Amino acid sequence: MSLAKIDRYIESHFDRNIAELSRLCAQPSVAAQKWGIEACAQLVADALEARGFAVKIIPTGGSPVVFGERAGKGDATLIVYDHYDVQPPEPLELWDSPPFEPTVRDGRLYARGVADNKGNFSSRLHAIDAILAEEGELPCNVKFVVEGEEEIGSVNLEPFVRDNQELLGGDVCVWEIGRVDHLGAPTQMVGLRGICYVELRVRTANRDVHSGTGGSIFPNAAWRLVWALNSLKDQDENILLPGFYDPIIPPTEREKELLGQLPDMLDYYREEFGLKGFLKGIDDPLALAVEAVYQPTCTICGLTSGYQGEGSKTVLPAEASAKVDFRLVPDQTPEQVLAQLRAHLDVHGFEDVEIVDLGGNPGAKTDPDHPAVQLAVKAAEDVYDQPTRVIPMIGGSGPNYIFQKYLGVPIISSGAGDSDSRVHAPNESISLDLYEKGCKHFARVLMLMGDY
Amino acid sequence: MSLAKIDRYIESHFDRNIAELSRLCAQPSVAAQKWGIEACAQLVADALEARGFAVKIIPTGGSPVVFGERAGKGDATLIVYDHYDVQPPEPLELWDSPPFEPTVRDGRLYARGVADNKGNFSSRLHAIDAILAEEGELPCNVKFVVEGEEEIGSVNLEPFVRDNQELLGGDVCVWEIGRVDHLGAPTQMVGLRGICYVELRVRTANRDVHSGTGGSIFPNAAWRLVWALNSLKDQDENILLPGFYDPIIPPTEREKELLGQLPDMLDYYREEFGLKGFLKGIDDPLALAVEAVYQPTCTICGLTSGYQGEGSKTVLPAEASAKVDFRLVPDQTPEQVLAQLRAHLDVHGFEDVEIVDLGGNPGAKTDPDHPAVQLAVKAAEDVYDQPTRVIPMIGGSGPNYIFQKYLGVPIISSGAGDSDSRVHAPNESISLDLYEKGCKHFARVLMLMGDY
Repeated sequence: MSLAKIDRYIESHFDRNIAELSRLCAQPSVAAQKWGIEACAQLVADALEARGFAVKIIPTGGSPVVFGERAGKGDATLIVYDHYDVQPPEPLELWDSPPFEPTVRDGRLYARGVADNKGNFSSRLHAIDAILAEEGELPCNVKFVVEGEEEIGSVNLEPFVRDNQELLGGDVCVWEIGRVDHLGAPTQMVGLRGICYVELRVRTANRDVHSGTGGSIFPNAAWRLVWALNSLKDQDENILLPGFYDPIIPPTEREKELLGQLPDMLDYYREEFGLKGFLKGIDDPLALAVEAVYQPTCTICGLTSGYQGEGSKTVLPAEASAKVDFRLVPDQTPEQVLAQLRAHLDVHGFEDVEIVDLGGNPGAKTDPDHPAVQLAVKAAEDVYDQPTRVIPMIGGSGPNYIFQKYLGVPIISSGAGDSDSRVHAPNESISLDLYEKGCKHFARVLMLMGDY
Repeated sequence: MSLAKIDRYIESHFDRNIAELSRLCAQPSVAAQKWGIEACAQLVADALEARGFAVKIIPTGGSPVVFGERAGKGDATLIVYDHYDVQPPEPLELWDSPPFEPTVRDGRLYARGVADNKGNFSSRLHAIDAILAEEGELPCNVKFVVEGEEEIGSVNLEPFVRDNQELLGGDVCVWEIGRVDHLGAPTQMVGLRGICYVELRVRTANRDVHSGTGGSIFPNAAWRLVWALNSLKDQDENILLPGFYDPIIPPTEREKELLGQLPDMLDYYREEFGLKGFLKGIDDPLALAVEAVYQPTCTICGLTSGYQGEGSKTVLPAEASAKVDFRLVPDQTPEQVLAQLRAHLDVHGFEDVEIVDLGGNPGAKTDPDHPAVQLAVKAAEDVYDQPTRVIPMIGGSGPNYIFQKYLGVPIISSGAGDSDSRVHAPNESISLDLYEKGCKHFARVLMLMGDY
């Protein structure tokens, strides 16, 4: 039975596989800081070439896309979307081991990007290794699309996919994400919210001023920013942009049914993050599950102005800025939000607040009962101890709408993440055990794609 | 005529004097960062001892006070209040030469603290040098009180002065400040506003969270901070603390008369700081002069939360903080403001916002027609090209109320600052020409104190 041999191959090559993943994670590739991007793209290209893929590093205007293609036995084509860029590692002082020095502790591998998404990418390669070793060929055609700007809103991906529809086309797309939930159940995450990420900037003078001189008479950039932000969302969490909620499509009955089957997250979140409670006083598992993903957000991700060191400095800041992300639900678009934001700020007297567009994309979802989702669920059956949970929409974002719009493909998941992975935060990690399971699951997805 | 000899001594020792000042400025002494404090106190003590002062470095619980005393010919005692601490030098990238490497360019000496207030302190020493060289003794008793926490609200000065009233007592106090205005006229600044400096801190979770996961359902520290700040002051600059404006004493008719004699600052501020206009639409010189110093303020001096680097990071911050200074006018007190602030935050649902008291003191003023002020004005007559402007109240703060409360002394000014000095900002500097004038002015103050 070939699956048993494939599993044994994965198990017996485990140390080599983790070593290869560690090399990939040791390469910084922070798109926001333009750090190590070209070098990491080359590592990805080399890894695909080593598996017999025909590889191109394709310029996009930003980070290049690494495209790799290898024909298989069957006619179906599986597209694998991954990204080689990672979130900034800051704040560095909160890491127990340096973010770009991958370290194994207590059965987990720690490194920036190991969960999001280098580990998932790598687990797919290692599944392919096993199949090639045991079967001699892939069961289906496989195309890798590995971009380098996912963490900054995939700012160049849409024109790239639009202009390369024939090159990239296929039948099913396995997305960059893949994880078990906090109870250990594998998941299929078939919908992602959209995002619109902006920086709001205010400048009120050509330089900072002594706060004694200017406090009563000079405009203050920090106050301007606070008032502008305050105008965006009230204390009851209502986002105040005109028309913001108009295009929103509520969850379907089937989606609500699936959300109702998900585990109760209330106690888990309270304990894990030390929360006293949830926004809007939510205290019901289904209400929390719906609110978490079927409502759009306006989140301040960062604030900066004036003096931020120890103790006091009596300065009146000339500059202030905020990072703000809007998570979008169907059918909101980033373009709508940018227009609403500008109009809102102008109407409220904040013409002086500049909006810097840092990227975005609409949300998108796959039918949770699509045959491709069923295939991914089936592939997990004998790998994990528990049945797969199909999650119709998650809180996070990604450019899956681009793949759905231009390639018309359903989206499925595979990977090595779990609820301790701390993606986007210090001490990001994956479980070594789940890494092996992720390899085995993806190997089964590939085998089943032979008959798709 | 001894004044001519004293002036010539000051002129002929100018390079040596600037070298000594530069050594003092090369010593970092940032109270907010506890950086170089002890070493700078020792430099100050050494400088006073070199002039025959009996010196004590007196512990206070924070930075020590350097006290130096030397008897003179007359009975009157002049108290000289200075501070050896300086503001933090950040942001470092905006300095044209390093803040602790004093550098002369175009007739100015650049260094952190050179204007506020090491240059003034030093000019007083160099006036004393000239008098001692030419006269053999001081015309009056002189006591130096040089503290090391002025830039962090003189947090330990009040108990120190209270407990040492006999040691510190005298007839007149020359304050740390001293400058010509932007038209070159010398000034006597006889009133200072009070200050209450706080840090507001919010923590909503035990760590930052992915903004996709938490945006709709988790409390966000940055939003909590923005809303709390917004509740403190409205967009029309009304400070909303209950009772905040109750104890305020408006300017007297004499103070308004003096303010009316000050130069029109509207165009100067517009051009110098690149301002489009002033708060509350003020467009009248007297209205601006009154508003600038006879109204209390609530100034955001700094904001910090979450991701502040290049580009985007999709994080929901668990912590946020703001530095806020309130400038107080008679008869407000920092204790009142702290109590009002806590009550206000609690009433508005911000029990979660912690207030860290970073120090403060009430304001205080000297009668602008006091004989000591007349003495200081007379001392300036043949030093500067223009008559002195008596400024009844300035926007800045300092612990002069402590000296008035415990020692009952009038406050006068002398020094080397000007409107290009950029105190508290990058590229702080003094004019070398005004430094020499500052020495000569203080020498005359001392000589006149012989007959006080």
